[in-house]
Amino acid sequence: MEILKTNRLSLVEQIVAQMESLIESGTWPVGGRIPPEFDLMTQFDVSRNTLREAIRALVHAGLLQTRQGSGTYVSSSSVLGAALKRRIQKANLLETLEVRHALEREAAQLAAIRRNEEDIRELQLLLEACQSAIRKNDSAAYVNADLKLHQTIVAASHNSILIDLYEHMSASLQDSVHNLVEDAPSCWHHHVHRKLVEAISEQKTDRAAEAVNDYIAQFKRILE
Amino acid sequence: MEILKTNRLSLVEQIVAQMESLIESGTWPVGGRIPPEFDLMTQFDVSRNTLREAIRALVHAGLLQTRQGSGTYVSSSSVLGAALKRRIQKANLLETLEVRHALEREAAQLAAIRRNEEDIRELQLLLEACQSAIRKNDSAAYVNADLKLHQTIVAASHNSILIDLYEHMSASLQDSVHNLVEDAPSCWHHHVHRKLVEAISEQKTDRAAEAVNDYIAQFKRILE
Repeated sequence: MEILKTNRLSLVEQIVAQMESLIESGTWPVGGRIPPEFDLMTQFDVSRNTLREAIRALVHAGLLQTRQGSGTYVSSSSVLGAALKRRIQKANLLETLEVRHALEREAAQLAAIRRNEEDIRELQLLLEACQSAIRKNDSAAYVNADLKLHQTIVAASHNSILIDLYEHMSASLQDSVHNLVEDAPSCWHHHVHRKLVEAISEQKTDRAAEAVNDYIAQFKRILE
Repeated sequence: MEILKTNRLSLVEQIVAQMESLIESGTWPVGGRIPPEFDLMTQFDVSRNTLREAIRALVHAGLLQTRQGSGTYVSSSSVLGAALKRRIQKANLLETLEVRHALEREAAQLAAIRRNEEDIRELQLLLEACQSAIRKNDSAAYVNADLKLHQTIVAASHNSILIDLYEHMSASLQDSVHNLVEDAPSCWHHHVHRKLVEAISEQKTDRAAEAVNDYIAQFKRILE
């Protein structure tokens, strides 16, 4: 009886681990619906109870979301990203900005060392998208391009933990910060972005850190 | 039937949330055993099944650990810390060192701004503990004092997200890094520690960042 219970527990953990790697690898992409219960019971060769408990564990970890009457969807590709997102929702904006500073500064310096041709090309395109949004006075497009620009810089660090940590942070931050800077001139912000992308392209780590320090300091002044 | 199922699910989530706050607040301290099943069923007014599922969710999140025949123990006080710890166990040492750099540099600079008299006193004591361990050639005592020194600097940042992120990171890192630097003279390391604590006491943010850059660069050279 005790042995049976233990085996069932570790079976749930095995299914959890298998589903986690399907999610992390993108086989089950974020935003997509996972296969129906019966298919998964066959695929993993487990009972309905075991499967449901594994799904609930992943819901609790923030990787899956169950929508009533519609099925179960992938809501995050990383346990770490989901945990950070939840933690940030409980924190104040200054604390969050400081963590953002820590991650973005390190990422910018590593990007300046490791960026490849493709990273540079993408950063240039996103810089142009920001510029074009400013010209058209299209703030939704600007927020979107700005978010992608910062995510692409973190991706160019080629450090998978930093990328995971940053995954959800930027999205939840962007909203609150952009409300704050609505009145601030985005041309200023754009100037710092250009400096940052240049520094990364030219592999100047100090200048890359400086640019991040500049815009974080600006945000802090607005907060105060 | 559908309604009953939904209520039961949200009940599990409620119990999970209540247990999480008992853990986060330290009412259930890390390392301690949680109350027996029957007491908890009475305390939360839930069935055995609901309670067990809530406990398993917290085991999966890394907050609780079930030891066979001995009960359930608190293994971490933060979901975020536990997620980072697991993520780091899968990562390589260079990636981890870069994340450590990000967090420790930001923490050192914030500590230089926010440290209070008690922080300074504690840092001085830990610096002396490192020194004394070097004199006695007691490497276990040195590793222990070194770990506490870094944790105390992060605590002096007074940023609760940084503290959570760092909680488990240092312990799992310390082991691997100390294996690497076993042959390196710890007096070198001690010199940088002294510089860092001085910078924090004198509120010099740039010098604090410099000291962190110094020892991380040293670790990177050893890794290469």
